[in-house]
Amino acid sequence: MDATTQQQDAHEQQPTPERIFQTLTAYQQAAAMKAAIELDLFTAIAEGANTTDKLAASRNAAERGVRILCDYLTVLQFLRKEDGRYSLSPEAAVFLDRNSPAYVGGMAGFLAGEHLAHAFDNLTESVRKGGTTMDAQQGSMTPEHPMWEEFARSMAVMMRMPAEAIAEIVGIEQLGACKVLDIAAGHGVFGITLARHNPQAEIHAVDWRNVLPFARRNAEEAGVAERFREIPGDAFEVEFGEGYDLALLTNFFHHFDAETCTRLMRKVHASLKDGGRAVTLEFVPEEDRVSPPVAASFAMVMLGTTPSGDAYTFSEFERMFRDAGFSRSESYPAPPSRIIVSYK
Amino acid sequence: MDATTQQQDAHEQQPTPERIFQTLTAYQQAAAMKAAIELDLFTAIAEGANTTDKLAASRNAAERGVRILCDYLTVLQFLRKEDGRYSLSPEAAVFLDRNSPAYVGGMAGFLAGEHLAHAFDNLTESVRKGGTTMDAQQGSMTPEHPMWEEFARSMAVMMRMPAEAIAEIVGIEQLGACKVLDIAAGHGVFGITLARHNPQAEIHAVDWRNVLPFARRNAEEAGVAERFREIPGDAFEVEFGEGYDLALLTNFFHHFDAETCTRLMRKVHASLKDGGRAVTLEFVPEEDRVSPPVAASFAMVMLGTTPSGDAYTFSEFERMFRDAGFSRSESYPAPPSRIIVSYK
Repeated sequence: MDATTQQQDAHEQQPTPERIFQTLTAYQQAAAMKAAIELDLFTAIAEGANTTDKLAASRNAAERGVRILCDYLTVLQFLRKEDGRYSLSPEAAVFLDRNSPAYVGGMAGFLAGEHLAHAFDNLTESVRKGGTTMDAQQGSMTPEHPMWEEFARSMAVMMRMPAEAIAEIVGIEQLGACKVLDIAAGHGVFGITLARHNPQAEIHAVDWRNVLPFARRNAEEAGVAERFREIPGDAFEVEFGEGYDLALLTNFFHHFDAETCTRLMRKVHASLKDGGRAVTLEFVPEEDRVSPPVAASFAMVMLGTTPSGDAYTFSEFERMFRDAGFSRSESYPAPPSRIIVSYK
Repeated sequence: MDATTQQQDAHEQQPTPERIFQTLTAYQQAAAMKAAIELDLFTAIAEGANTTDKLAASRNAAERGVRILCDYLTVLQFLRKEDGRYSLSPEAAVFLDRNSPAYVGGMAGFLAGEHLAHAFDNLTESVRKGGTTMDAQQGSMTPEHPMWEEFARSMAVMMRMPAEAIAEIVGIEQLGACKVLDIAAGHGVFGITLARHNPQAEIHAVDWRNVLPFARRNAEEAGVAERFREIPGDAFEVEFGEGYDLALLTNFFHHFDAETCTRLMRKVHASLKDGGRAVTLEFVPEEDRVSPPVAASFAMVMLGTTPSGDAYTFSEFERMFRDAGFSRSESYPAPPSRIIVSYK
C-alpha cells in the first residue's frame, strides 16, 4: 500500500487531523521541490548518482541535506527508494530530468518564485478585501511588473503542448499568408509556434517593454525573428492595428473582471478581419467552479495576485465574447487548460 | 469520481506535469488553510452561513474572497459544495469547527506561522550546508527563540491525545506519590495531564524562561499549579535534581544529533531513581526512513530549522538510550508519533 492510498483510506475510515497538519505545512513541499530542481537532483539520480554519498559529491551538498530531501521526495512519490538507492518516479523521469525533452523544472522559477509566493503571505487580508494585497493594490497588473519577466523566463516549457494544440486547431499550416496578433505574448511561444508551422505567418506581439525581449530572443532562436513584430505597451491602451486573421489571448483574461475582458475582446474584434478568429487559452472550471482540480484551483492564484481576476467558466466566456461581437465560440480540451476559438 | 481519485488515476496511467505544478504551488494550500482558520470560516459554515453571501456577511469579508477560498477548500476536500451551498467534510467538522471539542485550528499559528515558514525560504542552501540557515546557524535551537512561545501557544491542542496515551501507558493513576521531570515542557500539557490523573504527582517543568509562563498558565487553568515547579534554562545545562519516577522527553530529541541526544539521556538517567522510566514521544519513521508519511516527512522540518536534528528510527533511539545506561526500551503507537518507554 503506497503512502497516498494509505492516507486516503485513513481519510475515508475515520477523521484524523493528519491532512490538516499536512496542508498547513504544505509550503515545505513547495520548498523541497524547488530545492531539488535548483540542485538538479533528479538529473543526478538519472545519471546514476543514486545514493546519498554519490548525490552529495555530485552536487557539492551535505549528505544529511541530500538524504533528508530525497527521503522527503520519496514520501511525496517523486522518487522511489530501495535498499538505500533512489530512482525517479515515472513523472520525475519525464519532467524533472534535465536531459528529458519534456523537462519542466524551469517553471519553479515562476511558480515557486518570490513574487508569486509572497502574494500569499497575507491571504487572510486578500480574502477580506476580495483582492490582492501586493504592490499598492494592483498586484501583478502593475505596469511592467518584474514577475512577468520571471514568467517569460520560466514558463515557456509549459506552453509548448498547448501551443501545438492551437496550431492544429486553427489549421495554421493551411492558412497561407496571415497576420497573427499575440496579446500578452510573454515568452512568445504561442505566436512563434504558429510562425514555425507557417512560413508566411507574421506575428505581432504585444507585451510590456521589459518583457518583449524574452519573446524576441525566443523568436531568434526559433529562426522566425524576421516575421516577429513588437507592440510594446498596455494591451488596453496600445494600438493593435487591423486586418488580423488570428488573435491569441493566452492566459490573459483571468487577470481581469468580466467587464474588462469584454472591453478588451471588443478591441480584439475590431482588429480582426472579417472571418477572423480569436483564440483563448484559459483555465476553465466546470460550472460548479470546483472541478477539475487544477483549473478550479487557479482562481486562488488570481485572488492572491490581482484586484479582480478569476477563473471563468465556459458559459461566462461565451457571454463576454458574444457581448464583444463574436458570433460563436467553440471549446477544445488542452489539459489542464481549454482552448476557446471565437469567430468574428 | 472525486478530485483525488481523478488525479491518482491520471498519475498511474501516464505521467503529466500536474502534480509537479501542484507541489511547486503547495504554499498556496498552506496559505488557504491558514486564512480559513484565521477567518474561522469552518465554524461559520457549521453555524449555517453556508453560501458566499452569508459567509461574507458573517465574517465581514468580500464575497469574491470568500467564494474563491471556499471553492479552493472544496477542491482540497475540506469542504463540500452542492447547489452553491458549502458544508464541512468529516475531518473539517471534527477538527476545524471551533465548537468541536477536538478543534485543532490553533496549530495554524505555529505550523504556518512566520518562524517555521521562513525557515524554508532558502531550503536549497540548507540542503547544501546540511542544516538550517536561520538565525546565525542555531535555528530553532537558539536560546529563548520566540518560535517556542508560538509553539506553546498553538500546539497544546495536538498534544492532548498523546498526553492521555502516556498517562495510560505509564499507569500514572497507580503510581501514588511521584516526581515527574518534564523536559522542554512548552505548553506543559504532558506533565499537567499526568498531574490531573494523579493528585499526588509533582511536576518539574524545564524550558526557556520566556516559554514557561505558557505552561504555568495552563497548569493554573487545569488546577494543578501548586504541584507545578519551574526549572528555567537550557536542558543541557540546568540542574534537574534527582529521585524522579518519570522523565518526559516529548518532541525534543529530534532537534539534536545522536551524540547530543545520548548525552542528554545520560543526564536524565542520573536524575531518575532506581526503576525510574524515561518516556519519549517522537516522530519515528520505519528503518526505510520513507514511511509512514508524517513521521518520515518530519526530518524535513529538522533540516529547515536545526543544525543537525533528525527523525530517528526506533533502532537508533534504542542504541542511544542503551548507550546512556537504560536497560531496555519499549515502543507504543501514538499516531502519527510513537511513545518509547525506557527503563533505568
